[in-house]
Amino acid sequence: MSYSAFDHPVLSGLVGDDEVAAFFSLDAEIKAMLAFEAALAEAEARAGVIPEAAAKRIGEVCAAFSPDIEALKIATGRDGIVVPDLVRQLRAAVGPDAADHVHFGATSQDVIDTSLMMRLSAVSTLLIDRLDHLFQRMETLDSRFGERTLMGRTRMQPAMPISVSDRLRSWREPVLYLRQFLLRLDGQLFAVQFGGAVGTLHRLPDEAVEVRAMLADLLGLIDAPQWQNQRNVIAEFASAMSQITGSLGKFGLDIALLAEMGEEIELSGGGESSDIEGKRNPVTAEVLVSLSRFNAAQLSAMHMALVHEQERSGAAWTLEWLTLPQMVAAAAASLKLSDWLCTKIESLGT
Amino acid sequence: MSYSAFDHPVLSGLVGDDEVAAFFSLDAEIKAMLAFEAALAEAEARAGVIPEAAAKRIGEVCAAFSPDIEALKIATGRDGIVVPDLVRQLRAAVGPDAADHVHFGATSQDVIDTSLMMRLSAVSTLLIDRLDHLFQRMETLDSRFGERTLMGRTRMQPAMPISVSDRLRSWREPVLYLRQFLLRLDGQLFAVQFGGAVGTLHRLPDEAVEVRAMLADLLGLIDAPQWQNQRNVIAEFASAMSQITGSLGKFGLDIALLAEMGEEIELSGGGESSDIEGKRNPVTAEVLVSLSRFNAAQLSAMHMALVHEQERSGAAWTLEWLTLPQMVAAAAASLKLSDWLCTKIESLGT
Amino acid sequence: MSYSAFDHPVLSGLVGDDEVAAFFSLDAEIKAMLAFEAALAEAEARAGVIPEAAAKRIGEVCAAFSPDIEALKIATGRDGIVVPDLVRQLRAAVGPDAADHVHFGATSQDVIDTSLMMRLSAVSTLLIDRLDHLFQRMETLDSRFGERTLMGRTRMQPAMPISVSDRLRSWREPVLYLRQFLLRLDGQLFAVQFGGAVGTLHRLPDEAVEVRAMLADLLGLIDAPQWQNQRNVIAEFASAMSQITGSLGKFGLDIALLAEMGEEIELSGGGESSDIEGKRNPVTAEVLVSLSRFNAAQLSAMHMALVHEQERSGAAWTLEWLTLPQMVAAAAASLKLSDWLCTKIESLGT
Amino acid sequence: MSYSAFDHPVLSGLVGDDEVAAFFSLDAEIKAMLAFEAALAEAEARAGVIPEAAAKRIGEVCAAFSPDIEALKIATGRDGIVVPDLVRQLRAAVGPDAADHVHFGATSQDVIDTSLMMRLSAVSTLLIDRLDHLFQRMETLDSRFGERTLMGRTRMQPAMPISVSDRLRSWREPVLYLRQFLLRLDGQLFAVQFGGAVGTLHRLPDEAVEVRAMLADLLGLIDAPQWQNQRNVIAEFASAMSQITGSLGKFGLDIALLAEMGEEIELSGGGESSDIEGKRNPVTAEVLVSLSRFNAAQLSAMHMALVHEQERSGAAWTLEWLTLPQMVAAAAASLKLSDWLCTKIESLGT
Repeated sequence: MSYSAFDHPVLSGLVGDDEVAAFFSLDAEIKAMLAFEAALAEAEARAGVIPEAAAKRIGEVCAAFSPDIEALKIATGRDGIVVPDLVRQLRAAVGPDAADHVHFGATSQDVIDTSLMMRLSAVSTLLIDRLDHLFQRMETLDSRFGERTLMGRTRMQPAMPISVSDRLRSWREPVLYLRQFLLRLDGQLFAVQFGGAVGTLHRLPDEAVEVRAMLADLLGLIDAPQWQNQRNVIAEFASAMSQITGSLGKFGLDIALLAEMGEEIELSGGGESSDIEGKRNPVTAEVLVSLSRFNAAQLSAMHMALVHEQERSGAAWTLEWLTLPQMVAAAAASLKLSDWLCTKIESLGT
Repeated sequence: MSYSAFDHPVLSGLVGDDEVAAFFSLDAEIKAMLAFEAALAEAEARAGVIPEAAAKRIGEVCAAFSPDIEALKIATGRDGIVVPDLVRQLRAAVGPDAADHVHFGATSQDVIDTSLMMRLSAVSTLLIDRLDHLFQRMETLDSRFGERTLMGRTRMQPAMPISVSDRLRSWREPVLYLRQFLLRLDGQLFAVQFGGAVGTLHRLPDEAVEVRAMLADLLGLIDAPQWQNQRNVIAEFASAMSQITGSLGKFGLDIALLAEMGEEIELSGGGESSDIEGKRNPVTAEVLVSLSRFNAAQLSAMHMALVHEQERSGAAWTLEWLTLPQMVAAAAASLKLSDWLCTKIESLGT
Repeated sequence: MSYSAFDHPVLSGLVGDDEVAAFFSLDAEIKAMLAFEAALAEAEARAGVIPEAAAKRIGEVCAAFSPDIEALKIATGRDGIVVPDLVRQLRAAVGPDAADHVHFGATSQDVIDTSLMMRLSAVSTLLIDRLDHLFQRMETLDSRFGERTLMGRTRMQPAMPISVSDRLRSWREPVLYLRQFLLRLDGQLFAVQFGGAVGTLHRLPDEAVEVRAMLADLLGLIDAPQWQNQRNVIAEFASAMSQITGSLGKFGLDIALLAEMGEEIELSGGGESSDIEGKRNPVTAEVLVSLSRFNAAQLSAMHMALVHEQERSGAAWTLEWLTLPQMVAAAAASLKLSDWLCTKIESLGT
Repeated sequence: MSYSAFDHPVLSGLVGDDEVAAFFSLDAEIKAMLAFEAALAEAEARAGVIPEAAAKRIGEVCAAFSPDIEALKIATGRDGIVVPDLVRQLRAAVGPDAADHVHFGATSQDVIDTSLMMRLSAVSTLLIDRLDHLFQRMETLDSRFGERTLMGRTRMQPAMPISVSDRLRSWREPVLYLRQFLLRLDGQLFAVQFGGAVGTLHRLPDEAVEVRAMLADLLGLIDAPQWQNQRNVIAEFASAMSQITGSLGKFGLDIALLAEMGEEIELSGGGESSDIEGKRNPVTAEVLVSLSRFNAAQLSAMHMALVHEQERSGAAWTLEWLTLPQMVAAAAASLKLSDWLCTKIESLGT
């Protein structure tokens, strides 16, 4: 159970992050899916589509439901998605009176994509906080060392002196840019997905717009027409993740190069060698570079997944699942590591 | 001279585009670089940095200058960039009185990046026009066929009928989204690059901000601090190019699948086979898919190039040159081909 | 703990694989690392580099050692690698007499890369078996349906009839090719890595070659000079993984297209829809396509990691860790799913 | 006409290469396609499939034929491939008696893929020569400087001294490995493609095997069953190209890092700055890094193109055209630049 370094019992010490991982746990996924089903029932009851009693019962069950995970796993192997079996289990749990009202008019993609948006929206808030914090860390570095001198280097050759502030600007401004990028996405991307089997909400001929608006409201998401086969928002969020790791990859590489030259930086911490005593490796700086290359490669997969044929593409959608969570993990790790690295800069410039 | 299909004397019949290619011709590049040098001289003269007569002379020469291309090519092999030799030739052409005032305070990257922004800004306008036009083509399809029926297909299986309008929505809304994406970039990204050797405009200690603002104004670009080692704007433009090809890749694949099934679409045109008479291949639809995969792969290179170490990275910058122009070519081709393909849809739905 | 679908408690029902996952578990990693340390001690004792008693003691401890995982995780966050702390724990466990003889002359990369090769070699054998088995499955399909007719399709258009055998050949021959590819790699790639701190085995001035040969022999690997900063073998193995998913992606897409057209194939199994009863989705076929795109994207990261600067690159090496295990998981899943899919083809051709 | 830096009138001074470009010129492509048609006619005449006189006439015309390029370009825009119109022009040129015997039994893909193999086979020979030459250059560096000392660096930190020979080994052995890689491919990959419309050579029911063997022999290629929808060979060649640029990217980065630190290397040549006199930039070393990242990204596109659906995939095949030629250009450039860079190392080590 250790294919991904982000989950790995040991490597997660390096690139893991419990705070963000929590949003990608099975618990969080299922909790969000159940929140969808509960909110859907409530919205449909308000609109008169299903009985109030059924919605109440569904809401109560969803609040406490613990699905049979092994059954979900087996069914996912058959169905390609977890939802049909989750709904089956949920229907059994709510009992015969409400069973038919569970998941009414919705399709698997509605549940999975909306659950993703709920969690990405929260993750985005967390990443924005980290960007803020990192920006402040870099401002602190500026207060402490900004007026000192660094050799400005172009094409890996010394060119002429600059101030430490000059270099810090090239690390800090992308952080601000990325913060604004995520803030803009926040107001635009995190929309409910609700389309039914083929995107037309055919089971709600008259109430579709009303139910969708209430559903969005109940879940704290933007109301928007279904986007099940229009993945631009996802692709743009993925670009943001890769821009985070890319910009911090530059920060990491700059630190690693400063550390290699050795005269303009003092770092505390640093990794030990198993063979050479006293050597201190700028591990965090290197890992920032690794994460930037990792996300750049994943981004191509996410853009491949824009080609989402017909009304729903199993192939393109599954490709997102294989790729996006780790892109978020890499962006989160890269913010956390950059923040930490800032605190280890004991001296910068001369 | 045919490594790239976009330039290829024969394949450019398929994926080429004279209108956009014009912005990536050597002529256009050099013209933009000379415009930069002329505007810089004018701005510096206005700010009292160089004599007015020198600026006048530089402007006159730039307006008509034809550099020795072979010399530029040889020098680029040595310098990695065309600018040092272009400036040398330009200095010789303006004569001894003005020579020292050519390119004063600027560096190669200022010239090349600004020249790129001037041309990308124009290309972006053209792409926005094409997105508009394509949107209208798709609206026309909706007027003609929107009320007909298509089999809605999910996971490559028939699910239930939808209207042609429903399917058209999934093609057309991304076009609108992309148009807004480019419009937003238009007001934000196309900024002058002016930083001098290490980004500090050290030769213009007092006049840097004033000169930069005038330079931007003269070139019709946004005024902004140098971004020579902050490539987020470029990465975002590249994402936009890949979103264009990706969204139209979905359109292409949908058409190809409709054509394969054969009962719900009639296409005119189509490619001939060299062996089977009468077979008509949905070549354009397939090429849209190819272009989407191509740009998705290039995008990873452009995001790798975010890691732009120190004050200027030869490695990351050159990687942009190898990649970005063809991403633009692919996006432009994909808009042109989609537009054309819309006109070949003789019937859609049943 | 669910960033990766291959590890995910539910999605692993779709793309997981206990048999291959076992080689990427922490247990398997640590077991292989301890086997390295034990074999190293034994080889060094035979060569007279360390005392026989120390080697015996080290071997006994390694055979049963259970490291403190939490300590390893914390140390990996600092050191970027697990080995320094594992060696520290191991030295404590063997006691003062043998402690200095643990890991003598080796470096972290020796342990990690050799442990990887031991496990990849075993995985490769398993993949070769799966390729064999899949080839037989496809031969069985040929026996059953080979003489029937399929519409041959080029550029997604019907061209002229072919036999089912003709189509099967395009699925089966790559399986054979890939089997030979892996067999060739088997005899060439799975080499011990043993170089010491900077690749020169400086602590074994006279015994380096002898110890390395014995070490390789004890671990069942090829003896070869250190390759710590020459990653071609790894890149080639990664290409093989991507060729497996790519070739089976074609198989999957062909099945999905056959299923979409519906007249030439009958599939049993297939995924259920949460909304439309009786619809059967060719989930497995779609997932094969997803896995092919996934690995193609990862491959670019693995080839980025060829640029392994100086004597050891933390950045490039860490990038391999982020990428390669999941490429293997994808290849293994794709073989398992293809095998299963073959058994679900109830009828092919007309 | 300057989308690709490899073709660009100025940038080709940096990354261009007339010797390799010659194999990708339109002339070379058409010459190879005509050679295919002539050889096919000859083989078919020998097998009694077409009259000897027709074959003779076709051979004579092919030897001297200059197609109407503008017509080819227009037709390619329609057909997606150049062959149908080339065959049409050729049939007109040979006159009515032989016209029907031109291209008999073949399809466009036979002509294009075989033409590619003819040229890649020649390019491969040239690359092998360059690898040989580069290996010798590196051996010369070893003779001159091998016994000197370099600081061995791991994770971008000084570790302990090594010899220059030690470092050179990490540059030179991959060159040998890559030479063997290409030599192995030489004996395995460059096979004729001959399958007819759907791969079954249906127009040559009895003579297919005989004609194909003669065709291969006449063109100096390996005889093998059609591989039109099995692209493993192409994917493996692409991997080789990316391994070349990747391994030389390490060489380039090592040189750039040595030059940055400045004390252990002396380089002559080097690029001039437009702003700072006397600064010498290690442009060639940086470009090697750029080329490695470029090819790594392209490789993912080439592996995407393994998913070649049904009997012929326009989408996957076109994607190869957009990608592979420039991968070869990058590999060739990287060998040429590495060779040149070796000659500029005036001193290495201390």
